[in-house]
Amino acid sequence: MFISGIGRTRFGALSESLPELLYVAMYNTLKDSNLDISDIDAIFVSNFLGGPLNGQLHLNSLVSSFLPDMNIPILRIETACASSGSAINQAINSLQKYENVMILGAEKMTSDNVMGPIESIAMASDRYNDQVNGLIFPASYALIAQQYMQQYGVNHDVLGLVSFTNHQHANLNPLAHFYNKQITMEKIRNSPMVSSPLNLFDCSPISDGGAGVILSRYKEEDRDVKILSSQLASDSISITHRKDLTSFKATKIAAEKAYKESKTAPHEIDIFEVHDCFTISELIALEDLGLCHPGQAAELINNGHISRDGKQPVNTDGGLKANGHPIGATGLAQIFELVTQIRGEAGERQIHDVKKGLAHNIGGIGGTASITILGEV
Amino acid sequence: MFISGIGRTRFGALSESLPELLYVAMYNTLKDSNLDISDIDAIFVSNFLGGPLNGQLHLNSLVSSFLPDMNIPILRIETACASSGSAINQAINSLQKYENVMILGAEKMTSDNVMGPIESIAMASDRYNDQVNGLIFPASYALIAQQYMQQYGVNHDVLGLVSFTNHQHANLNPLAHFYNKQITMEKIRNSPMVSSPLNLFDCSPISDGGAGVILSRYKEEDRDVKILSSQLASDSISITHRKDLTSFKATKIAAEKAYKESKTAPHEIDIFEVHDCFTISELIALEDLGLCHPGQAAELINNGHISRDGKQPVNTDGGLKANGHPIGATGLAQIFELVTQIRGEAGERQIHDVKKGLAHNIGGIGGTASITILGEV
Repeated sequence: MFISGIGRTRFGALSESLPELLYVAMYNTLKDSNLDISDIDAIFVSNFLGGPLNGQLHLNSLVSSFLPDMNIPILRIETACASSGSAINQAINSLQKYENVMILGAEKMTSDNVMGPIESIAMASDRYNDQVNGLIFPASYALIAQQYMQQYGVNHDVLGLVSFTNHQHANLNPLAHFYNKQITMEKIRNSPMVSSPLNLFDCSPISDGGAGVILSRYKEEDRDVKILSSQLASDSISITHRKDLTSFKATKIAAEKAYKESKTAPHEIDIFEVHDCFTISELIALEDLGLCHPGQAAELINNGHISRDGKQPVNTDGGLKANGHPIGATGLAQIFELVTQIRGEAGERQIHDVKKGLAHNIGGIGGTASITILGEV
Repeated sequence: MFISGIGRTRFGALSESLPELLYVAMYNTLKDSNLDISDIDAIFVSNFLGGPLNGQLHLNSLVSSFLPDMNIPILRIETACASSGSAINQAINSLQKYENVMILGAEKMTSDNVMGPIESIAMASDRYNDQVNGLIFPASYALIAQQYMQQYGVNHDVLGLVSFTNHQHANLNPLAHFYNKQITMEKIRNSPMVSSPLNLFDCSPISDGGAGVILSRYKEEDRDVKILSSQLASDSISITHRKDLTSFKATKIAAEKAYKESKTAPHEIDIFEVHDCFTISELIALEDLGLCHPGQAAELINNGHISRDGKQPVNTDGGLKANGHPIGATGLAQIFELVTQIRGEAGERQIHDVKKGLAHNIGGIGGTASITILGEV
C-alpha cells in the first residue's frame, strides 16, 4: 500500500470557509498525484468540530457536492484530535476493496462559529467526569505536566525549549501557522500563564486549515511512499480513570504493534511527527514511542537529538505548536511532512537521507492513538 | 460474512444518558451472541449529534472506558441519519483485517441537550444554501412531497396510510417508541400541520435509543444471518443542487449495486426496512428500491402489498415513524428487525418464511444512502 498524493492548505487564521478548505485540500492533493478524481473509489472525511463550531455535519455529503454524478462512498470519521489518524487507519483497511481512496481533513476554528472553540474542544473530554469539573484541555494537560515534572524532577525550561524548537522549524515551513515569526526563549518564558505550569507558548494554537492524502493499493509512480504500518488503539476518555498521567497507554500499544508490523525499531526511524498539542505531550510521546526511557525525554531535547541537525529530528514542519492544529487536518499534515521529507522534496527544511518516518496522532488525553510508519519505496 | 449478534434498547423518551444507551446496546448485543467481549477486535460507533446535542464527542474513547485494558481500535462514524448504515458498510470492509467487529449506535435527543434538536438536526443540511434559507428538514421534505404529489397526482391520504400502517406495526413491537398507541386515520388526518403538506403524523419522532450489531468473518452459530451485500453511495448535500426531488439518486445507485452483488431482484426480497423519516420518503424509497415504477408507490400502499399480510411487508418494526428515530441507532435497529425476522424470532410480529431482507438507511435528503441485503444461512 502506497501514498500516491498529498496536499494541504496554509494553516492559520484563514478567510476560507470549511467547505472551501476541504475543496482546496482535495484540489491540491489531486494535483500532487498522477491520478484523476475519477480514479478515486471512496473518500474518508476527517473533521472534529463541524457541528458545534460550524453548524455543518454530514460533511461526506458536502464533499459529494464537489463531485457531481460521482456518487461514490464517502464517510466522515471523528475521533477528536486523532480524526485524521483514525481515517487513515480505516482507509487502509478499505484498500482490500478499493484501489485508490482519498482522505480529506479540515477544521474551521478561528471564525464562522456557532459555539465557542473552548467549549467545543472540551467535547473531546468526558462530559460527566471532566467537563463539569472544569477540566478543559489546558487544565488536564497542566495536571499531566505537574505530575510529570514532579515525578522526573524537570522544570519548565525544557517545555520552553520544545516550543522554541518547533517555532524554529516552522520558520522553514511557508505553510505553517507561525511561519516567519521570530520567537525568543525570553518571549516564551514571559508569555502569559494559561494553566500552571503551562503558559501560552506551551499550547498549540486554534487554526484553520485543510489537508489530504491519497492511498493506493498499487504503486502509481516513483514518488510514491510505502505504508509500512498503521495502528490504532483506544483508552478511557476521563482523566479520572487513568492510573498514570505521565504515559499514554494507547500510544504505547499502537506504537508497539506498528514497530512489529513494520519490522522497525524506534532507533531506525529517521524522522518523527509527534502530537504536541501541548509541549508536555511531546515529552510523553518521545518516551511512549520508545526514543528513550520514561523520564529521559528532557535529555533528548536538551542534547539536540530531536532537532533538525540531530539524529532523529521531530516535527520538522513545526508540529502542532507552530505548524498549527486545525484538528481534522492535523494528522494528515503530519503525513504530508513525512512524505515530503521521504520524497526529498522538503526544500529548505529537507533533512538528509530520510528513509523512514513515523506519525503519531492522538485524541483527547490519549483516548485515541494512531501510529503510521512510512518508508521509501 | 455474518451477523452474529444484535441488541437494542427501547426507543422513546428515555431516562438513560448517551453513555448509558451505548452501554446497554453493547451489553444486549453481546448477550444475544455467543461471543465474549474479548472476541471483539474493533468497534465502530455510530452517532450523529453527540456534539451539538450532548456536548460529547470522541465517543470512541468513551466506549473504550467501558472496556478497561482492551485498548482495541474504536472509531466513530457520522454521516447524518445514515451513520449506522455507513458504519456497517465500513465495518464490513474491515472484516478482511478483523474476525469480529461490533457496531454500536446511539442518540440522546429528548433531553440533556446543549443546543436544541431542531437546529442540531439541521446541521445535516447545507449550511450556506439551505439552513440559512430556513430549509430545516420538515420544510425540505415538504417541498419534495409537494413536487411528488403534483407530478404523480396523488393526495395526502396515501401519506396518512403510510403513517397508519407503521403505527399498526409498532403496536406489535414492545421496544418501539409508539408501542401500544392506538392511532386512527381520523387522528392522523386532524393532526397539526408541520410544513404543508406534511402534518405531525408524517414526521418521525425525536427519540432516544441505542442499538448494536456484531459482524463476524466466520459463522459463529446457526442463528447467524448472512450479509449478502452492503453498499454506500453519496449525493450533493443541498436541495438546490438536485435536478429531481421525487427520487434519490444515491439510493438507486447503492440499491442497484447491492442487488447485483447479492444476485437478487427486488421481487425476491421478503421484507424491507426503509428510511421513512417522513412518510413521503417511504413512497420514494419503494420506487428507488425497484418495488415499483416511479409514481406507483401509492398503489403498493393502497393494495396492501407492503403491509404485514402483503407480499412484501415494509417496516414491520414500525419504521422510523413509529419504532422511532434515535438517529445514530436507526440503521442498526433496521438490521435488528431483519435479523430477528430471518431468524424467526419476531414472536407476535413474525412474518411467515422470511429468507431475505433489505435495509435502506439515508442521510439528509438522500445525500448518503446505505443498502444492506441479508439472507438466511
